[in-house]
Amino acid sequence: MGDIHAARRARAQGKIAESGADAALITVPANVRYLSGLVSSNAAILLPAAGPAVLATDSRYAEAAARDCPDIEIATERDLEPALAGLAVERGYSTLAFEAQDMTVERHLALANLAAGPVLVPLGHVVEGLRMIKDETEIELLTRACAITGQAFAEVLGQIVPGRTERDFAVVLERTMIDLGADGLAFDTIVASGPNGAIPHHSPGQRVFAPGDLITIDCGARYGGYHADMTRTVALGQPAGWQREIYDLVATAQLAGVAAAVPGADIGDVDATARDIIDDAGHGDHFGHGLGHGVGLQVHEAPLMGRGRTGRLVDRVPVTIEPGVYLPGKGGVRIEDTIVVRAAASRADGAPEPAEILTTTTKELLVL
Amino acid sequence: MGDIHAARRARAQGKIAESGADAALITVPANVRYLSGLVSSNAAILLPAAGPAVLATDSRYAEAAARDCPDIEIATERDLEPALAGLAVERGYSTLAFEAQDMTVERHLALANLAAGPVLVPLGHVVEGLRMIKDETEIELLTRACAITGQAFAEVLGQIVPGRTERDFAVVLERTMIDLGADGLAFDTIVASGPNGAIPHHSPGQRVFAPGDLITIDCGARYGGYHADMTRTVALGQPAGWQREIYDLVATAQLAGVAAAVPGADIGDVDATARDIIDDAGHGDHFGHGLGHGVGLQVHEAPLMGRGRTGRLVDRVPVTIEPGVYLPGKGGVRIEDTIVVRAAASRADGAPEPAEILTTTTKELLVL
Repeated sequence: MGDIHAARRARAQGKIAESGADAALITVPANVRYLSGLVSSNAAILLPAAGPAVLATDSRYAEAAARDCPDIEIATERDLEPALAGLAVERGYSTLAFEAQDMTVERHLALANLAAGPVLVPLGHVVEGLRMIKDETEIELLTRACAITGQAFAEVLGQIVPGRTERDFAVVLERTMIDLGADGLAFDTIVASGPNGAIPHHSPGQRVFAPGDLITIDCGARYGGYHADMTRTVALGQPAGWQREIYDLVATAQLAGVAAAVPGADIGDVDATARDIIDDAGHGDHFGHGLGHGVGLQVHEAPLMGRGRTGRLVDRVPVTIEPGVYLPGKGGVRIEDTIVVRAAASRADGAPEPAEILTTTTKELLVL
Repeated sequence: MGDIHAARRARAQGKIAESGADAALITVPANVRYLSGLVSSNAAILLPAAGPAVLATDSRYAEAAARDCPDIEIATERDLEPALAGLAVERGYSTLAFEAQDMTVERHLALANLAAGPVLVPLGHVVEGLRMIKDETEIELLTRACAITGQAFAEVLGQIVPGRTERDFAVVLERTMIDLGADGLAFDTIVASGPNGAIPHHSPGQRVFAPGDLITIDCGARYGGYHADMTRTVALGQPAGWQREIYDLVATAQLAGVAAAVPGADIGDVDATARDIIDDAGHGDHFGHGLGHGVGLQVHEAPLMGRGRTGRLVDRVPVTIEPGVYLPGKGGVRIEDTIVVRAAASRADGAPEPAEILTTTTKELLVL
């Protein structure tokens, strides 16, 4: 893995050199992990435009850093950013780029007040941009995270029965993901039954499942640092006409969104492809969130796909496609896959451009 | 609960008025929850020095806000800070304080660039300062979180047997806390066995427990938003002389630290009381972290107690007391309680000044 992280750092160093800074202070936790391999809640990297990088962490993580990051110099420090800024000065770096999307105004002020400190300039989302396009090692980890999620979902489906609470079911599903090898959860599981299905981010509570419910389950395993994200909506008992109608509508929009996620596609167009179907059915006001987002070392990362978002999808970008329809007081449906945008040449099966779907659970309406 | 949050806001408003700002933009998640009662990953409050506050959140949390925060105006927004800054201008507030410890440079720049926006000034850790001293409702929630933690620990002690992995045991302990009513975990459980005990924040892995191990378990339940934090070190089989020696040393230091945590005590003195005992035994270099920290809506909050920290403990401040000794390559011991500093008048039992210990699990060395 050392080679991978060194190669990633080399790519980032090229971008730092282009920016004109002498070095960058990397503090976004997922960026630090991406460039070093270290899993830590408190670490930062001084990454020069050219030359060796330094990874700083505190004494709690010093042993892990020595073990997991053999190819990078490690500094054990109490206060990471000032220590690395001081090192930058020692090395003669006069301009230090920083991640303005992560650094707080308070920490920035402390750095800016350092005597004889470097000139601070925003780096931009340079490392996030590199992280958007995954290598095959990353796609393997994400694939495994999605496989665990799907297997856990299949194992616990039989436990969706009248009388069970949302919270109980969420706990069982989460435990099954851990038992199947997940490092942890990608995010807090959403289980939204009956009228709660109208709340996109409902926190599972004491409501018991009842016949006639639609139940939306949004869940994901984390594996090797990578985050799966899958949503399915199931019916407890035969669905009513309105339930079947919004389910079929969301499923149609979701499939259209997946089909539109090809290399070169404009992000706004992908969103519109799915959204227009829901709009045309008169439910535009019942789909208030974006169509999807990138997934990787963070559960929400670039690219964000929604109205007014710009950019293009390219080969090896994993995203979610997750339209929904939410009817206040009645219930809702959301269907979400994690997919990988693929050019034909990068697909293992050589098939042309359709995205690779990592969350393979059926999207037929399951009637339990 | 509405009254509690309104009263907290009134206290914060007094501090904002003292600062000279017309209003404050509250964005630290725990501060938003403290002042509104809303549990959300995306919410902010516009809190004027005088007059009604506005709670902004996105559409995912709008229903929860309407349900849980009946006594505050709610604005559903996509981009919270610019919306609230705009509202501040509409209301004629010319100076807006912000939480520099939370706001990123990127978001700050976006606000500073708003046309005709307010003048932005740092608020400081004003709400954190209010949060440090808990009311009895908060202490009850923290007490419950600690009780769940202790009960779970007792229930799973019998599962510390040779051959079990650190990870398996951590999972069982975490599940037991959830089964006993925890909302979730206060933090990722640490289970550090044998030589891993020398790593203060060891992540539980595939190492199996073996006779002769010291095993350090650092765990906590979250209940009603409040975070328990407890560490115990147990012995698997009869401890060797060096194990018993460092255990007794850490236990002596821990008890001395708890005894020193009285109203009016200087934080540095409390740290020194425990640390000197470890220093005097020649293990000063093996205790690299602070003595403890405040706990509440965050697992680490004010006051931080360590060398060079300043301030005084006062009535109704919960803190941890957690000295440790870590011997690289050999193992370690840490013993930690969550306690509440109490003046005699505020103790239910009327006892004089000793702190109330919320994590009541024995600190005798358990030999399993």
